[in-house]
Amino acid sequence: MSDSTAAASPPTAFVVSIGEELLEGRIVDTNAGTFAQEFLKRGFHVVGKATIGDAPGELTDLLLRLRGTVDVILSTGGLGPTEDDRVREEVAAALQCPLAQVPVEGAEAYLREVYRRFRDTEPPAFFLAQATMPALAEPLANAVGTAWGFMSDLGEGTRLYTLPGPPRECASAFFDGGAIADLEERFQTDTSPLEHAVLRTVGAPESLIEEPIREFLRRGQNPRIGITAGVDGVSLSLLARPEGDSASARTILEQRITVLEERLHPYVWGRDGQTLAEVVVQALAAVGHRVACAESCTGGLLAGALTEVSGSSKVFTHGWVTYANEAKVAQLGVQESVLEEVGAVSEEVALAMAEGAMERSGCDWGIGITGIAGPGGGTEEKPVGTVFLALIGPDCREVRHLKQYARGGRGFVRLQTVRDALNLLRLQLAETSS
Amino acid sequence: MSDSTAAASPPTAFVVSIGEELLEGRIVDTNAGTFAQEFLKRGFHVVGKATIGDAPGELTDLLLRLRGTVDVILSTGGLGPTEDDRVREEVAAALQCPLAQVPVEGAEAYLREVYRRFRDTEPPAFFLAQATMPALAEPLANAVGTAWGFMSDLGEGTRLYTLPGPPRECASAFFDGGAIADLEERFQTDTSPLEHAVLRTVGAPESLIEEPIREFLRRGQNPRIGITAGVDGVSLSLLARPEGDSASARTILEQRITVLEERLHPYVWGRDGQTLAEVVVQALAAVGHRVACAESCTGGLLAGALTEVSGSSKVFTHGWVTYANEAKVAQLGVQESVLEEVGAVSEEVALAMAEGAMERSGCDWGIGITGIAGPGGGTEEKPVGTVFLALIGPDCREVRHLKQYARGGRGFVRLQTVRDALNLLRLQLAETSS
Repeated sequence: MSDSTAAASPPTAFVVSIGEELLEGRIVDTNAGTFAQEFLKRGFHVVGKATIGDAPGELTDLLLRLRGTVDVILSTGGLGPTEDDRVREEVAAALQCPLAQVPVEGAEAYLREVYRRFRDTEPPAFFLAQATMPALAEPLANAVGTAWGFMSDLGEGTRLYTLPGPPRECASAFFDGGAIADLEERFQTDTSPLEHAVLRTVGAPESLIEEPIREFLRRGQNPRIGITAGVDGVSLSLLARPEGDSASARTILEQRITVLEERLHPYVWGRDGQTLAEVVVQALAAVGHRVACAESCTGGLLAGALTEVSGSSKVFTHGWVTYANEAKVAQLGVQESVLEEVGAVSEEVALAMAEGAMERSGCDWGIGITGIAGPGGGTEEKPVGTVFLALIGPDCREVRHLKQYARGGRGFVRLQTVRDALNLLRLQLAETSS
Repeated sequence: MSDSTAAASPPTAFVVSIGEELLEGRIVDTNAGTFAQEFLKRGFHVVGKATIGDAPGELTDLLLRLRGTVDVILSTGGLGPTEDDRVREEVAAALQCPLAQVPVEGAEAYLREVYRRFRDTEPPAFFLAQATMPALAEPLANAVGTAWGFMSDLGEGTRLYTLPGPPRECASAFFDGGAIADLEERFQTDTSPLEHAVLRTVGAPESLIEEPIREFLRRGQNPRIGITAGVDGVSLSLLARPEGDSASARTILEQRITVLEERLHPYVWGRDGQTLAEVVVQALAAVGHRVACAESCTGGLLAGALTEVSGSSKVFTHGWVTYANEAKVAQLGVQESVLEEVGAVSEEVALAMAEGAMERSGCDWGIGITGIAGPGGGTEEKPVGTVFLALIGPDCREVRHLKQYARGGRGFVRLQTVRDALNLLRLQLAETSS
């Protein structure tokens, strides 16, 4: 739809999320984003998303309105075993066909078996309805739940994929159940001309990231670049299209990334789905180093971030959550006199925690974190958001007095601190190895 | 729109999220859910949500299509300082008026000052555009960012609130900047007839939660109940309306909750925005107990969950992340011979970790967690998702052999384990105090 991508005429997609719980904001819709990215990777332009409830006729109306205006519609939700789950009927109405059994042997028998695990009675009709679909549709198997998905031709060139709502179930029906194979076959996405990448930065606000690269952010540039800011830093999303026969989208993308990385050094830390913790774990593993953490206000979240990385046991062995002063003294050897003189939230205590963690674990690096996450505990001298972060390692003895943005609340202060601790270690590792 | 709420004719709202980054799924849209809940609390029925990109004319078209069909439209995003941020122009087109300066003294001067912090040059026009809005709109102050929000009458009885995209900024413009005051004045929501609550359960799958309460889940019931399942358990969302003059919505809601709590004992642990960790921290505080954690596969996330609760320092003082065997031995006193005989992922080691944590901290309760979060490390005997969870405390010495659902990945196994550990402690505390 936008000028910069229209030249390549990518196929278009529209994502529909169904459920009153989404409209009411009781759960965050992660499906829509997941599938948007899958479309993007395959060269589609996602032109819109909608969330609707379970009012009769609403989905049918939306499908008929979108028919012929987009190449693909993908919906999630509304296929469960309750009477509110009316998506099968709504799609059948749009296709003007009746409902029928899923034409896969054992589909209903499996539902009966699942039901028998919990009850001795005959399964009710709305439970067995999970093995039905519009007669004109083809089934999409869901290996991790009871509701079948299905796909169909809505007419006027629009293909419709109807998936269950729970994230694991719609992923199963989409990736393994047959939707993705159908999509790739129909839209020949192996010849997709668009290439996408995300460049991740940390340590500078959005305005500072924009300044040195403003010329690349203008509308009509190839690649097109979007900027977003989150708790883990500022991200640049690049979408490149080929230019005639002279340059492939991938070449154009990589050339631009090289320039961006130069101009945004040292803020760029990774690409696409990488996490900052992954980058740090890899950097530690590359030099054969290990790190130990001693945490107070972050309460284990730094250790949690590092150990989220598969294979982190090579570089992370010991962590302490010394929330009370007595724990800092007994477990890390922080001196009581220091705690009394300067208080637990201080440069000295952060350093002593980092030292204690490094020495007691025998690791190469020690991190100490102490601060006031709020909402209580702040003073005029040390307001909520005051954090001392210490890093000790080979030729390194750094302390940072962080003034975290406190209005985002306790959780935000803690996540910002974890991010800054990981980034400090990343920068020091880069210095050590260069 | 649904039968069960139409009787009370609540005002209707539609939420629009604007940004290519949302369509591309690069960031998850949390704003839409936040505002949906704010509407719900005030008795609105959220009838739909849409996400659109920055294609010229798209927002104007959507606004004109919705005009007269809903009482309120709230949009977030598209007000930033880049050339892609065209929401001011799009709203002005729908209102058929030009853009004008925000009529607040110092609005532009403040932008100039912010710009000067980073650059010596004159701010570009698109940066200063953040202090403009459609001439027919009224400003909504944003205390934590540079872009102003605004509100306007779209015509045909539809009120429009246009807010910036970053979650902190739209919250500022909505709550403190004037939108909420305007909304409550116009829709007199203090007389709102609907009442809402969420009942949270853990320990039983959705099907087992539904069975004993199926009669209350039917369409047309008051309160209306929706069920959703997440990593932290199954939640029931209740929306009650008054019945004539005989019963207020609050009374109807509370009576139903009492019945649900009885039928779903002991699975119900909390309500609304509570977290399981909050409930556990409160239960510990109520009896003056403290808990210490020794974590291996959860890597600090249990400590992280407990310390997320404000005031948790009263009940949580010590945590260990003993990821390596040497850490389990040196920091918790687990015997090397036990590790060699039965392996780190075992009932014996979980118990020894819990004991070590309890004894070395002097706390009343000790929790030990050891398992295989995956994706590597699984064996036929101990597949990925195998976790041993031990709890030791007053008259209590419990071990659970958890078989966590592994297909959700490493993060899912860890979060399920944290939830089960918190729930085990919750149930034991209930038993101890009863």
